[in-house]
Amino acid sequence: MKIAIDVMGGDFAPQELIAGAKGYLQNDGEAGLILVGDEKVIRELWPDLPESCEIYHTDEVIEMGEHPLQALRKKKNASVAVCATLVKQGKADGFISAGSTGAQMAASLLVLGKITGIERPAISVMLPTSGERGVLLLDVGANVDVRPNHLFEFALMGSAYYEKICGVEKPKVGLLNIGEEEAKGNELTKAAYELLKNSSMNFVGNVEADHLFEGKANVVVCDGFVGNVLLKTSEGVSENMQALVFKTAMSMGEETVGNFKKAIKKFSPSSPEYSAAPLLGVNGVSLVCHGKSKAPVIANAIKLAVSCSKSKYVDLITKELTKAQ
Amino acid sequence: MKIAIDVMGGDFAPQELIAGAKGYLQNDGEAGLILVGDEKVIRELWPDLPESCEIYHTDEVIEMGEHPLQALRKKKNASVAVCATLVKQGKADGFISAGSTGAQMAASLLVLGKITGIERPAISVMLPTSGERGVLLLDVGANVDVRPNHLFEFALMGSAYYEKICGVEKPKVGLLNIGEEEAKGNELTKAAYELLKNSSMNFVGNVEADHLFEGKANVVVCDGFVGNVLLKTSEGVSENMQALVFKTAMSMGEETVGNFKKAIKKFSPSSPEYSAAPLLGVNGVSLVCHGKSKAPVIANAIKLAVSCSKSKYVDLITKELTKAQ
Repeated sequence: MKIAIDVMGGDFAPQELIAGAKGYLQNDGEAGLILVGDEKVIRELWPDLPESCEIYHTDEVIEMGEHPLQALRKKKNASVAVCATLVKQGKADGFISAGSTGAQMAASLLVLGKITGIERPAISVMLPTSGERGVLLLDVGANVDVRPNHLFEFALMGSAYYEKICGVEKPKVGLLNIGEEEAKGNELTKAAYELLKNSSMNFVGNVEADHLFEGKANVVVCDGFVGNVLLKTSEGVSENMQALVFKTAMSMGEETVGNFKKAIKKFSPSSPEYSAAPLLGVNGVSLVCHGKSKAPVIANAIKLAVSCSKSKYVDLITKELTKAQ
Repeated sequence: MKIAIDVMGGDFAPQELIAGAKGYLQNDGEAGLILVGDEKVIRELWPDLPESCEIYHTDEVIEMGEHPLQALRKKKNASVAVCATLVKQGKADGFISAGSTGAQMAASLLVLGKITGIERPAISVMLPTSGERGVLLLDVGANVDVRPNHLFEFALMGSAYYEKICGVEKPKVGLLNIGEEEAKGNELTKAAYELLKNSSMNFVGNVEADHLFEGKANVVVCDGFVGNVLLKTSEGVSENMQALVFKTAMSMGEETVGNFKKAIKKFSPSSPEYSAAPLLGVNGVSLVCHGKSKAPVIANAIKLAVSCSKSKYVDLITKELTKAQ
């Protein structure tokens, strides 16, 4: 098993990407790694590179501000495109990037292609709940204007992913809405409700945003605009509250800070399933990391990529699609 | 100045509504109150009713599950409808309700009517930021499918309200979006961006959901579906984090709990401007309170209703509309 890492992408690239790769090998080290980036820089940062780690040299990288498609056409050897190609060629079993999400989406679509039958791949994130398990939310930004059948696709993909990664058979699927009753919502959600109700999925109905965090459903679907707003709202509120809590704890001594860090860890999640956002619907494992990801998150993302590849969720999506049609 | 209170609506009605009215009179007491509800019940709960408080008897109330319009037709003397009528007749200067939001919207629209030139009244809420001032978000649920000109209306109404209530001249108006650049977003936000850019408002561009809490804008507009999701997400994350924080603080003693309660008060806001959601665009002051509101929130909502009436924001909206057309 080999995971490709886009060492050049991200706010703290290449340092934190390489530190994350080191961390992964030190703690788990099950899979071999392909570091995609500038060989000279990588060797400087990691002089005693172990044998389980190879380098694929490229010094082209797509910057955050660039137009994804134009940049990909111009930079044939962009690190993110190389990663996708390695997966396509079977030389890697999955890849992670913390660079431009748009570029990763475009590279994944162009190189890996879509799973047959999927119109709209979606970015999915796991969010913490007050319960034991996280909730998978999709789409969180790949598709801003969608039709009801796309929400159906998201549900099908999310359900297959959750089943394979979290080991929950027939996960509970919810539709993000602004009320619980069937008749609630906008034109999109009303039509999607009908499709989901008549499917073979374990559809539990509408889920309001505040109930999402209670774990009422395992998978919740929405359009990418709404999902992105939800995701960023939870980040914003969580960060602001953490700042207030730590400021108070600080005045009470270091031990207190530690206690509170531990207590609210759930909302600044560091376990593998929260570390990266799988791009579901492309024909291969492509995990999107936050641009701000530091080494521990990268190490966990590599771990998640290994689970994803082993789980063969891509095959399950294909199978479920055939059943649904 | 007189404020009408729908004593019958809300999860904790009539007790907390009456307790809130008492609290208001004890602490501020500037305005007279009209308690709309069952006279017998009110007198039992408040035997020594002061002179500044009158009762308007009705025992009809619209329950949460009822269809707003059908219920209003059937129950001509529903407490929320009576409140709106008192405002319409000039006997009250504004009203608050913690009952069914749908019923309050319907009663406000039917009885008070819309401000001339406004197509879609919107529910607006003030949210806390890390800065000094809150941010006014609208719409948060009155309009689930909107057109770009409705977002323009929301901006105009929100701007006038913020100017009058917070005393900020030409408040900064932002468009909720999933990226900062002008070209970002869905069809709705792209078209609304054009309208806002070419207006005389102090438009500061797109605002992402996490930046909303940094106070980048004073007023942020979005459709009611997205706004409702944002509002409930912030409630859900905030409640879950508070639970974790208090649990930890509890194990450290009562004083610690107190310290943290004070610290994160900002995200469980108790000041008047956060207590109720003005229904902007109807021709009169109609404040929506959360169904779960307890006495201190009700007291603050009454205070806000007084400010709203004094501020004459309804007149400013009318004036700004004329300028914009």
